[in-house]
Amino acid sequence: MLVTGGAGFIGSNLVDRLLANDHTVTVFDNLSTGRVQFLEQAAGHPRFMFIRGDLLDHAALCAAVQAQDAVFHLAANADVRRGTEHPRRDLEQNTIATHNVLEAARLGRVGRVYFTSTGSVYGEPAVFPTPEDCPFPIQTSLYGASKVACEALMSAYSQAYGMQCVVFRFVSILGQRYTHGHVFDFLKKLRANPRSVEVLGNGKQSKSYLDVQDCLDAVLLVSQVVQDPFAVFNLGNDGYCTVDESLSWICDEIGLSPGRQYTGGERGWVGDSPLIHLDCTRMRRLGWTPQHTIEQSVRATVRYLLGEQWLLEEAG
Amino acid sequence: MLVTGGAGFIGSNLVDRLLANDHTVTVFDNLSTGRVQFLEQAAGHPRFMFIRGDLLDHAALCAAVQAQDAVFHLAANADVRRGTEHPRRDLEQNTIATHNVLEAARLGRVGRVYFTSTGSVYGEPAVFPTPEDCPFPIQTSLYGASKVACEALMSAYSQAYGMQCVVFRFVSILGQRYTHGHVFDFLKKLRANPRSVEVLGNGKQSKSYLDVQDCLDAVLLVSQVVQDPFAVFNLGNDGYCTVDESLSWICDEIGLSPGRQYTGGERGWVGDSPLIHLDCTRMRRLGWTPQHTIEQSVRATVRYLLGEQWLLEEAG
Repeated sequence: MLVTGGAGFIGSNLVDRLLANDHTVTVFDNLSTGRVQFLEQAAGHPRFMFIRGDLLDHAALCAAVQAQDAVFHLAANADVRRGTEHPRRDLEQNTIATHNVLEAARLGRVGRVYFTSTGSVYGEPAVFPTPEDCPFPIQTSLYGASKVACEALMSAYSQAYGMQCVVFRFVSILGQRYTHGHVFDFLKKLRANPRSVEVLGNGKQSKSYLDVQDCLDAVLLVSQVVQDPFAVFNLGNDGYCTVDESLSWICDEIGLSPGRQYTGGERGWVGDSPLIHLDCTRMRRLGWTPQHTIEQSVRATVRYLLGEQWLLEEAG
Repeated sequence: MLVTGGAGFIGSNLVDRLLANDHTVTVFDNLSTGRVQFLEQAAGHPRFMFIRGDLLDHAALCAAVQAQDAVFHLAANADVRRGTEHPRRDLEQNTIATHNVLEAARLGRVGRVYFTSTGSVYGEPAVFPTPEDCPFPIQTSLYGASKVACEALMSAYSQAYGMQCVVFRFVSILGQRYTHGHVFDFLKKLRANPRSVEVLGNGKQSKSYLDVQDCLDAVLLVSQVVQDPFAVFNLGNDGYCTVDESLSWICDEIGLSPGRQYTGGERGWVGDSPLIHLDCTRMRRLGWTPQHTIEQSVRATVRYLLGEQWLLEEAG
């Protein structure tokens, strides 16, 4: 199994799960946001190999893909918010990189490619909870646009070349090795000033979150039982929470009661979705159920980050 | 006004129309499939300029976009059928090229970008006639996938940077300066062998077609009256015809009665859509109505090509 982005948050957790399930695992990661520390557990394993490589390097990618049974393509630019400052980044690191992964998989005769997309592809949908076959969405972020492009390539490759291609549309994921997102941002702000915290938007944005192990339960289940040449699965919790609620859990976990300064508006930034709530019926029909509530996951993520101060100091 | 792909079939007709409407027009075209002959009428015009340039050349594109009021982005790889033989072509000439156009327009502060997408983005839809907001489609061709990627970039750019971005989803277009598609292919085959003709698929594929002048009526109307920051319009005829019917009109027009050899199957090739029929209500609400039937357009296209034998000899 090849895992691109395997040194990242979700990728490294997937690597540990795949190794525990007796698979041979190769990680392909350029360490732009991935961290070797996340692979410490995997590193000593006889069935583990690490390749430091970039997805824009066709030759390196083709070599890594050789003789792999499946590719889990998790590498991506995941900085949704700053897309407008770097308009080429999502194109290169998401769209072109995913084309390169598919092309390497085709040339290397890899049978299966699993891709981590995002609920952001729905933009601001008209239907909640949003099912996979909701009306043709309009993109509100360069990040979402690039992920839609990747998904389209996945389906076209599956159709053209007979590879199995599976797309997962994630909500925001929480848990061990979490390195960016609202919990991270709030903790950094509260370290700098424990008495007052800036909240992007009006605090009423409502989003669903999912624990990384629940997420990987679903990914691994799909990889074992789904045979369709092309398939799409929403992955999220049935519930959701507001930014304000999540901030309260975070503050409670660290024992602070800061004032809240709202930047205002329904959206935290241009392209932010005021409401993300996915219909995960399709995934649940396979027998999957999340084991963690959103509150449990937020609190566990806070505790994890408080125990890994180096992450808070290093990143962002 | 800048017209990318302005030396092509639809582009050169658009150029003539824009000049007739008193606009100043610059064509940006690499002449990979465009033809200088199509710009003979425009060439002598004092308000016309031609730039031979490639959309992957960022500097040239930025220079061309300077001080333009609007960009009509028509340049594309339009070879739907052979996408699987050249998997990088659609990525480069459609997705990356469109990103470059949008980026140049943003940097050059161009207020409006019009983009020619395709009904192929619907893949094999579940709803006929297919409206713009049909269920989230699954791509069946690399061509469709690349156009979806372009559309997603259009909406994200409009949202992020406040440019007006309008997407047209065309059916196949017919008329003067037509250079590729089923009428072209059949005429070439019949020139080689007037007694027998190969038909890709079972001949029952049903598709809608639209006359190039009807198409441009719609594009120009939208450019004059639509103010939405982002909009999508299907463009086609309300009717459709089968490949067999169209072949009969072609044969009738040239006075031949060849035998027909069907390659078989519902699809002419991998990624071919067995049925293309777009719901154009949204466009019709603006007061637009096609002036030509599909049969009239097919027959007029045959007569045009018979008068321009150089095209049949040179292309394909």
